Amino acid sequence: MIIVLKPGTTDREKEHILEKIKEAGLTPNILEGQERTVIAVIGDERALQKQPITALPGVEKALPILSPYKLVSREFKKENTVVDVNGVKVGGNKMVLMAGPCSVEKKDLLTSIAEDIKVAGAQILRGGAFKPRTSPYSFQGLGEEGLEYLSEARKKTGLPIITEIMDPRDMPMMMKHADIIQIGARNMQNFRLLAEVGAHNKPVMLKRGLSATIKEFLLSAEYIMSAGNAQVILCERGIRTFETQTRNTLDLSAIPVIKQLTHLPVIVDPSHAVGKTYLVAPMARAAVAAGADGLMIEVHSFPEEAYCDGDQALLPKDFKTLVAELRLIAKAVGREL
Amino acid sequence: MIIVLKPGTTDREKEHILEKIKEAGLTPNILEGQERTVIAVIGDERALQKQPITALPGVEKALPILSPYKLVSREFKKENTVVDVNGVKVGGNKMVLMAGPCSVEKKDLLTSIAEDIKVAGAQILRGGAFKPRTSPYSFQGLGEEGLEYLSEARKKTGLPIITEIMDPRDMPMMMKHADIIQIGARNMQNFRLLAEVGAHNKPVMLKRGLSATIKEFLLSAEYIMSAGNAQVILCERGIRTFETQTRNTLDLSAIPVIKQLTHLPVIVDPSHAVGKTYLVAPMARAAVAAGADGLMIEVHSFPEEAYCDGDQALLPKDFKTLVAELRLIAKAVGREL
Amino acid sequence: MIIVLKPGTTDREKEHILEKIKEAGLTPNILEGQERTVIAVIGDERALQKQPITALPGVEKALPILSPYKLVSREFKKENTVVDVNGVKVGGNKMVLMAGPCSVEKKDLLTSIAEDIKVAGAQILRGGAFKPRTSPYSFQGLGEEGLEYLSEARKKTGLPIITEIMDPRDMPMMMKHADIIQIGARNMQNFRLLAEVGAHNKPVMLKRGLSATIKEFLLSAEYIMSAGNAQVILCERGIRTFETQTRNTLDLSAIPVIKQLTHLPVIVDPSHAVGKTYLVAPMARAAVAAGADGLMIEVHSFPEEAYCDGDQALLPKDFKTLVAELRLIAKAVGREL
Amino acid sequence: MIIVLKPGTTDREKEHILEKIKEAGLTPNILEGQERTVIAVIGDERALQKQPITALPGVEKALPILSPYKLVSREFKKENTVVDVNGVKVGGNKMVLMAGPCSVEKKDLLTSIAEDIKVAGAQILRGGAFKPRTSPYSFQGLGEEGLEYLSEARKKTGLPIITEIMDPRDMPMMMKHADIIQIGARNMQNFRLLAEVGAHNKPVMLKRGLSATIKEFLLSAEYIMSAGNAQVILCERGIRTFETQTRNTLDLSAIPVIKQLTHLPVIVDPSHAVGKTYLVAPMARAAVAAGADGLMIEVHSFPEEAYCDGDQALLPKDFKTLVAELRLIAKAVGREL
Repeated sequence: MIIVLKPGTTDREKEHILEKIKEAGLTPNILEGQERTVIAVIGDERALQKQPITALPGVEKALPILSPYKLVSREFKKENTVVDVNGVKVGGNKMVLMAGPCSVEKKDLLTSIAEDIKVAGAQILRGGAFKPRTSPYSFQGLGEEGLEYLSEARKKTGLPIITEIMDPRDMPMMMKHADIIQIGARNMQNFRLLAEVGAHNKPVMLKRGLSATIKEFLLSAEYIMSAGNAQVILCERGIRTFETQTRNTLDLSAIPVIKQLTHLPVIVDPSHAVGKTYLVAPMARAAVAAGADGLMIEVHSFPEEAYCDGDQALLPKDFKTLVAELRLIAKAVGREL
Repeated sequence: MIIVLKPGTTDREKEHILEKIKEAGLTPNILEGQERTVIAVIGDERALQKQPITALPGVEKALPILSPYKLVSREFKKENTVVDVNGVKVGGNKMVLMAGPCSVEKKDLLTSIAEDIKVAGAQILRGGAFKPRTSPYSFQGLGEEGLEYLSEARKKTGLPIITEIMDPRDMPMMMKHADIIQIGARNMQNFRLLAEVGAHNKPVMLKRGLSATIKEFLLSAEYIMSAGNAQVILCERGIRTFETQTRNTLDLSAIPVIKQLTHLPVIVDPSHAVGKTYLVAPMARAAVAAGADGLMIEVHSFPEEAYCDGDQALLPKDFKTLVAELRLIAKAVGREL
Repeated sequence: MIIVLKPGTTDREKEHILEKIKEAGLTPNILEGQERTVIAVIGDERALQKQPITALPGVEKALPILSPYKLVSREFKKENTVVDVNGVKVGGNKMVLMAGPCSVEKKDLLTSIAEDIKVAGAQILRGGAFKPRTSPYSFQGLGEEGLEYLSEARKKTGLPIITEIMDPRDMPMMMKHADIIQIGARNMQNFRLLAEVGAHNKPVMLKRGLSATIKEFLLSAEYIMSAGNAQVILCERGIRTFETQTRNTLDLSAIPVIKQLTHLPVIVDPSHAVGKTYLVAPMARAAVAAGADGLMIEVHSFPEEAYCDGDQALLPKDFKTLVAELRLIAKAVGREL
Repeated sequence: MIIVLKPGTTDREKEHILEKIKEAGLTPNILEGQERTVIAVIGDERALQKQPITALPGVEKALPILSPYKLVSREFKKENTVVDVNGVKVGGNKMVLMAGPCSVEKKDLLTSIAEDIKVAGAQILRGGAFKPRTSPYSFQGLGEEGLEYLSEARKKTGLPIITEIMDPRDMPMMMKHADIIQIGARNMQNFRLLAEVGAHNKPVMLKRGLSATIKEFLLSAEYIMSAGNAQVILCERGIRTFETQTRNTLDLSAIPVIKQLTHLPVIVDPSHAVGKTYLVAPMARAAVAAGADGLMIEVHSFPEEAYCDGDQALLPKDFKTLVAELRLIAKAVGREL
């Protein structure tokens, strides 16, 4: 950590700062510059995280050198993590396709969609039984009944299931039905929920919060890993900006940034990012080209009757066409699909 | 263009609007709806671009018709809601001051701070027993022990307590110890938590999420109210922008906007918004001038030893000085403090 | 709710929409306008919240009626505009590559880079003679001397030149030396400069401002076109968000959005968007996959000696490798490069 | 400057970095930490600004210690700058009120508004003769004729005039008519325009760009000062965020931040920030409470007939009422108005 002192800091204040650094078991190096005095702290600066360094009299600012996360970092583990989901590998050279309706609605419809996406090339079925909706008057999901429909669809198609958890009290149901537990964007900093899924042995897909920096995103993944669960998949799904033409702004540069900083797989959800059907395909193509390890795409047989987000779902036939295009791009960037 | 008229627009004003439309060479269509009169304008509306239509008397707005929330809206309930917290009124003409440390740390220290802020003029004691921290390696709060310290401080000072809930499973503890349950910014869209506090009879203070629009903020309040709990207090605490000189950007214009849209009281937390001690006082003053119903301010006797956010806490003596200034401003805007 | 129908909506589709509205217990009012049929819905539209109205066949959008721009719009001109730059076509099926140093520095170096990028497959040489720098103490460009170096490099390589204008008073120089005049992001709303380039007969590439909505971006293009110059090329180069890992956030969804709204070609500048060498290649690949009509990429033989933005420039050999990859992706999406 | 090296940087790369630092006349200090090697550079790091340090092999990141601006900084000049505008002091203990219509429209109307605002307590008349409008089809201002109306209104009322420049070619007109030249938000990084007003002896009010950080804002002021003109006034007028209830988000915390970093006066323009009449008064009050040195407020006698921004203008009588309120708040924070 680099601590920059205010001009005119007294010797007594300086001494006090040095003491605090030494108390934390670290070594301070004083560098007297022309306009500023700087203290470079040698040692694991994470030891200073519990100290409000910038509250000390005389401190202008503190610049951290090391990243605040550890287990998720590429330095901690060099090789890519591959999460095994009932035989489907997430994070390897072969990209993974997750698809399905936004919310689980009717049993037969779900199974039918599951069969369609399987034929089209998807390996994992998505579907929400618990839906985080902005308004209390919107459809909130079928709950456990929805989870049972998902289990049924898995039995019929063999596709593993990813579904969202919203409440730590639902963990037993999730352990029973889900193959990957999804933490949605709005719960990325629901730390008790992170701790709960971290304490179980089940793959977790963590979505980036709408206004989460990549650093915060990785710290939320660190919550899960530090609680004991290393099977973490990250998902970029758009961030909130001033632009209103798209629901959110898909931050595709996050893919190479995250893959440099961490060993975890990165999935992209273009459907929620853009919120409009006609934008899903180009953004899916771009995500593959940018190096994503997989995609999550909403597919629905009757989008206009979907209980939620029908305006961003692809028809099964359009999904199939898209997969064919994605395969060409995957090949162009040295990946399989 | 869709022009929405104010309720109670006079015939003369209506005529005037119609004339302006005709002057621009366009044809107005009046649609008398259940709750509003709407004018749909037929023709090339570019002709209206030079006319500030929304400045015409009687025009409420152009374009969006109904807001998605109901119970929280000013249309549903005209008069201001006043939440009674053990005798302390939140939302009346008299402003309310909540103060205390970011996190509860030691019993005696908490009681001592509580006494200090009471003398300075605060009516409610704040303190976190469960702390939502970005990093899993930061201090996470004392948990139930912290709640007991808060209860103890209340017994000694008589000050009601506000403290944060992070998990629906902690609700029984909260019912036992808290006078106001706080939902933090990161949990503003933790809908299961909203439903939980909505199902109990205890005042709730809901903080605006870092990237929440005012519409989303009010919809989250609607979750609580529609679950049965009408004792809701809103809190603006800064939104995430590109600016890095402050932790967040305090959106003070949210105060008059929210007070027009809803009947609920609005508190401002300048401490978390700005994240630096020297900015707390000017932003607190500005919040009072902008019409806030109260403030929540971090106060700590030994900021440099605080377990969290010490760099934004005021010393008790500085808080006292600030309260005196705030009283003058409150008076200048016709409020009491 | 105001529902706008697509031109050419069939009677059957219209009936279907009306039915849906009636099913929800609401009353539709059809307003036959000059350019569109609009349905104003009377009643409590909350009943429509569960219906994805915009997913219904025939529905173009819900709410805003007409866009504020005209000449740039796809409605005004259906077919793609192809800008001819001394024989290089921008906007056709064949994608265009613009490359070169951020700023023009030395004559021989520029010519050498120009030769390198030509061999690698670039068709247009970029280089700034006037540099908009955040700090007055940074290198501001060589001015007219730089333009002469560019002309020299064009003579040697045959590559047309794109270079930035910062001041309407420099227009004569630009007319003499440039093949495409670039308006930088910071000048996107320098309306007098837009009017100036609009009044001349020379291709213009307009970069999106850091905080410009797509609507504002197109309105700035409309300034140029309405002044008489139809040879406009748009360039997405990243928008400002809260994320700090990248210089800006490249908004690739802007490509398909813009291409739907307008007939103008869209170029992507990944170098300025991300600001770091290692991110340029993945974002360039993604831009091609998302449907860009071309790329502008910074290339420098000695990045560490560049006078500006050296930390985002590719080496000629890396650029060459990238072009080979881009060709594969272009082919995968049915384009040539 | 603190230079952080990548893990695994070779000795040769390290040597090369040290050479570059010495070439710039600075002294490197190597600090070997547990996980990272850091080079602390002693000396005026601005000498490194022309070097792309992060482009050097082995460099992970560079953290500047000093601010990049000099003349505008509080360290360079401790006491507040007071700009004298024909006898009206901007930046002293007495706050200044600028008011008037958004755009100059008719001569008699302007003079009448000028008289009204003078009576209400304003000291400076605002009015745009050149209007930066998002759309080319909006009213663009009366040009020189508008400047003449302003001069006329000054002659009649004695109020100095502030008006916006959009083009360096209009400088002679501005020197003839304006008392303060305004640089609008969209031109904050129109560096040639900054240089032009910097080369003349006339007060300049620089508005913050919609997406400008405070650092960039101050660097734009540095452009003016480094060109020779020290009479610079800063103006906060709202930044662009995701919130759509207000036109922009007024960043009032920028006032105390800027006043700590610089000696220049800070004015707040609530009218453009919020864009709605009913929000102007609360935000004006808040700005005074937050420590602004003055306000710029739009006032128009017939807002509904204003050629631009009529929906944010106050009536003269409402302005008068507001001024009375502001005086009380100014007094409460130890200022005069």
